[in-house]
Amino acid sequence: MSEQLRKRLFTELDSIRLIDPHSHIDPLTAASKTLADILGYHYYTELCHSAGMPREQIEEPGLDPKEKVRRLVEHIEPLRNTIQYGWFLDLAQALFNFPKGEHLTTANWESLYDSAANRMAQPEWEQQVLDCTKLDAVFLTNNFDDPLQGFDTRRYIPCLRTDDLVFSLHEPTVRDRLQKATGVDVHHGASLVDAIGKLFEHFVVHGARACAISLPPTFAPTPCAAIEVEEALGAVLHGTEAGPRHKDTVARFVFWVLADFCASCKLPFDLMFGVHRAVYRSGVYQGQDLYDSRVSLIQYQELFNAFPQVTFPISVLASVTNQELVSFAWIFPNVVTNGHWWYSNTPTYIEGDAGARLEAVPQSKQIGYYSDMYKLEFALPKFVMYKRILAKILAERFVIDRGWSEEQAVELGRRVLRGNVERIFNVG
Amino acid sequence: MSEQLRKRLFTELDSIRLIDPHSHIDPLTAASKTLADILGYHYYTELCHSAGMPREQIEEPGLDPKEKVRRLVEHIEPLRNTIQYGWFLDLAQALFNFPKGEHLTTANWESLYDSAANRMAQPEWEQQVLDCTKLDAVFLTNNFDDPLQGFDTRRYIPCLRTDDLVFSLHEPTVRDRLQKATGVDVHHGASLVDAIGKLFEHFVVHGARACAISLPPTFAPTPCAAIEVEEALGAVLHGTEAGPRHKDTVARFVFWVLADFCASCKLPFDLMFGVHRAVYRSGVYQGQDLYDSRVSLIQYQELFNAFPQVTFPISVLASVTNQELVSFAWIFPNVVTNGHWWYSNTPTYIEGDAGARLEAVPQSKQIGYYSDMYKLEFALPKFVMYKRILAKILAERFVIDRGWSEEQAVELGRRVLRGNVERIFNVG
Amino acid sequence: MSEQLRKRLFTELDSIRLIDPHSHIDPLTAASKTLADILGYHYYTELCHSAGMPREQIEEPGLDPKEKVRRLVEHIEPLRNTIQYGWFLDLAQALFNFPKGEHLTTANWESLYDSAANRMAQPEWEQQVLDCTKLDAVFLTNNFDDPLQGFDTRRYIPCLRTDDLVFSLHEPTVRDRLQKATGVDVHHGASLVDAIGKLFEHFVVHGARACAISLPPTFAPTPCAAIEVEEALGAVLHGTEAGPRHKDTVARFVFWVLADFCASCKLPFDLMFGVHRAVYRSGVYQGQDLYDSRVSLIQYQELFNAFPQVTFPISVLASVTNQELVSFAWIFPNVVTNGHWWYSNTPTYIEGDAGARLEAVPQSKQIGYYSDMYKLEFALPKFVMYKRILAKILAERFVIDRGWSEEQAVELGRRVLRGNVERIFNVG
Repeated sequence: MSEQLRKRLFTELDSIRLIDPHSHIDPLTAASKTLADILGYHYYTELCHSAGMPREQIEEPGLDPKEKVRRLVEHIEPLRNTIQYGWFLDLAQALFNFPKGEHLTTANWESLYDSAANRMAQPEWEQQVLDCTKLDAVFLTNNFDDPLQGFDTRRYIPCLRTDDLVFSLHEPTVRDRLQKATGVDVHHGASLVDAIGKLFEHFVVHGARACAISLPPTFAPTPCAAIEVEEALGAVLHGTEAGPRHKDTVARFVFWVLADFCASCKLPFDLMFGVHRAVYRSGVYQGQDLYDSRVSLIQYQELFNAFPQVTFPISVLASVTNQELVSFAWIFPNVVTNGHWWYSNTPTYIEGDAGARLEAVPQSKQIGYYSDMYKLEFALPKFVMYKRILAKILAERFVIDRGWSEEQAVELGRRVLRGNVERIFNVG
Repeated sequence: MSEQLRKRLFTELDSIRLIDPHSHIDPLTAASKTLADILGYHYYTELCHSAGMPREQIEEPGLDPKEKVRRLVEHIEPLRNTIQYGWFLDLAQALFNFPKGEHLTTANWESLYDSAANRMAQPEWEQQVLDCTKLDAVFLTNNFDDPLQGFDTRRYIPCLRTDDLVFSLHEPTVRDRLQKATGVDVHHGASLVDAIGKLFEHFVVHGARACAISLPPTFAPTPCAAIEVEEALGAVLHGTEAGPRHKDTVARFVFWVLADFCASCKLPFDLMFGVHRAVYRSGVYQGQDLYDSRVSLIQYQELFNAFPQVTFPISVLASVTNQELVSFAWIFPNVVTNGHWWYSNTPTYIEGDAGARLEAVPQSKQIGYYSDMYKLEFALPKFVMYKRILAKILAERFVIDRGWSEEQAVELGRRVLRGNVERIFNVG
Repeated sequence: MSEQLRKRLFTELDSIRLIDPHSHIDPLTAASKTLADILGYHYYTELCHSAGMPREQIEEPGLDPKEKVRRLVEHIEPLRNTIQYGWFLDLAQALFNFPKGEHLTTANWESLYDSAANRMAQPEWEQQVLDCTKLDAVFLTNNFDDPLQGFDTRRYIPCLRTDDLVFSLHEPTVRDRLQKATGVDVHHGASLVDAIGKLFEHFVVHGARACAISLPPTFAPTPCAAIEVEEALGAVLHGTEAGPRHKDTVARFVFWVLADFCASCKLPFDLMFGVHRAVYRSGVYQGQDLYDSRVSLIQYQELFNAFPQVTFPISVLASVTNQELVSFAWIFPNVVTNGHWWYSNTPTYIEGDAGARLEAVPQSKQIGYYSDMYKLEFALPKFVMYKRILAKILAERFVIDRGWSEEQAVELGRRVLRGNVERIFNVG
């Protein structure tokens, strides 16, 4: 019974039109041009490298896209078990008529490459992908100095990404970009607040619907005393004597200022917890970051208390933190669960993490999934993976274990997949 | 096969008469008087608040019970997915004939409220609830200065709760209560031991069967040197200069003294690990506490080594600690697993945690479940939830995976649900 | 459907001939002589002790093997639910015709003891066990001064165990053994490196295929400055003034030297993370160790970066660390997942941990299972347990959830069970 039930629920969930609340899409080149854009995704390059492919073969300067794909395919056999390779098959089958049951091999890659390139060259390719995925809108991840020009911000919704502001203000290039973007000469706390205010203004005018940041496991934001801020800013802005303590003070200060503007601009503040950057220093591009599971949401208790009017959609990297997230979202009105991020975005972990959320966090406070994609083609297989798992959870834990009707189960799925995205981010 | 099997096992488990080894029942008013006692449970108030209901609406001074229920029902729709709401439906169907398949709504709450109030007003209501739940006895959570008068201590079994003694002796009100309860003027280590001894005497005379405490994640008890104790007590008892170090010394000292009395009085010492109090300071009553998953049972290794003759039934807040608990209960003869506590008390986590215990901890060392309830009506739906999950685990992991007979599976269930409670706490 | 599918997959997996990549077998007495060798395994003694059997009854000096078994059987009833007891039944049924459905009791233990002793006394018993288990070779755990004489090193493959060298060089007996094994007078860094080099030479000549170590949760290896090393070695080697800092420096230095020799000798370096020794000080032999789940692979990032040419098969004690391991093995080419260790070696945890690995780590980088056994008879039930779980995961997560063919699923199983062991350790 359970398998048929799962299929029926999946079919219903799969008919829902989507808004993708977090991606890294470049709205000016949202869709792929060749399979190299697909297989060049860090999930494939890092897994091929992890399985033995030298980084130099992947990142050779000036490498032709077709040759890059040829090389990756040569090393892709060890990835066949991975869900990431599964995404590729789902995508290729749905978008390029790649035959079911076939693997990507040195024998068949070239014809797939060529036929995909043909489709991608059609002017309506981007629209075809959106239609096929039933995707109405996609949130972006914009640098703070993004002009936000040249695209439809109702389809590609701006989101102010703030990592640089919080953690890299000691870098002259970041300060230069801030100055150019705002026209403000940042030399003390008040002018920094002024500059950040101008960024928010610019983003809100252009339809931004969220502010976002990824956070190292060591960060624990608290309010700063004004005098402490000025001393730290003095050191950091002038690039002299900025030690770890000063940088941490500036980070905490800027973070607090961002939360303040999220409050006044009514923007949710997406927090993504726990990533350590550049752990594997010889890794491929975007394949160097890892995490430390010894992180706790308790580090953010002051923030959640201080900003009751700001909604914090939160993403975590490990199931141990997901259990905390479930509890924090159950207690704090402003804490919302958000998708299944990166190393947690595989079926076994999604199944446990989503199951726990669905039975203990109010249904209005759960954002089911986002793609995190760089190219538009990936929304389809990633959301399909999630919807299959969601159908499984709803079938087993709600219809079978708790006696829900299938309609009720689908309704809960619709809410976490679409309804909450609309309401929480004020879109759609 | 699995679903029918689960039902058969559940039916058997559901026929077992229960002793509830941990609750917060007030034995003088054990059952509810109105639905406000039911929906006023912090699980509903905190989840309604989390989903957007202002605390002031819930906690308005002098609020009429019926109006309180009306307001909560107005905000309860977002909770429909939660297992806590599921408890309510199970309870209302079993005890108040609330129709299956119906939700609690603004249209039907009032008739439920009135009919429930009628039933609750019957003199035999408390007994009806006990009968319907097949509940023979319920452990209490008594303040150290509870007179333990006016109720049948074989039905409502006293348990000495000791948080105040360990962590709040620096508060004059706590010292006053201790003085009044014992007649001892506590002014140094020996008199404190004397006072605590009198508490144990009082509790044991009145049929207490356990001592209990909840512990913050930072606590790590070890024996204290006498001189260190006297200095710390000097500061704490006189309220002057009692800093964190002094308070910690007193906490470790009192904790050790409690373990000593548990040994001499042959009382199990229930330890509940990991809670941080008042994390969400604007939360509703009892809806402010959370936890830090970075806690380890290794913090208690000295205790477990020092008191081999004391049984420690242990509750944890997160699955990461449950895995440690499984291992510690497998190695230490005096460590026993105890129920599924608070934020771990939801099906996905119970299923993983209980499954791991059932296959690696001796069957004699597992206390399956307790209700943690404040009102008697909650034992029914909470134990039903646990029994459903227990039936699922026994069906899938024992009968199907390991070829057990159904009789063997039920026998294991009976042991963790009832037999171990009797033996470990010397009741029944 | 799922149960029949699982059985078909299990049958295929069960036909695979095995190499066991980690054990504690003594190759001179690999098989058991009596049931006391079986029930004397620490899993049974520690669980019987945990369930109430006094240590003195188990470890009485000069205790007759048969009397030891009699005593253990008297206390074994509380273990019937445990998977470890399940191993015993599987083993006794497969190797000694113990009847299915029967428990080990005070009524039947003696006839089993006698018939088992008869079989074990046959000269071909060891070969029978190997044949019945389809076991081609077994990795050992050899002390650094093991002569590696008197056995077939293609069947019993040496593995250099290095805990003593890294963590106990301050003990004179360890230094004596090192001196005797190598003929090197270790008095400074260079002579220590020289001595360790001789150990590797000896092991490689005798067919060693791995180096191994278990690591406390507090260890965080990094390179040491030469001057720091000489100072610490001075203190440690001469046994005077060797404090924790000196010991830690020596540990980090020796560990780094070992990794260097693993590189030059092309030996994988098995790392087993997180064990605290002697936590329960009154526990039975080998039943005193536990762990602290607050450990992170991030502590080893410098190592993984510094030795890209060394393969690190990694074992962990808890699921929280397994999730990190999945992520690290996905990113670092030299990190490989290795079996299910000790407190993680129970079905619920194996199922979650293995499921996560199988869907996110390249299939070439996973060593499915090892027995960790002390006596040859245990490979059979332990591998059977793993193969049942592997069949379940492949059935549910690959064939059903992802549409794989059964042949593909079995092929993946074959790879993690056998193929990767051959390739990673260069055996078979």
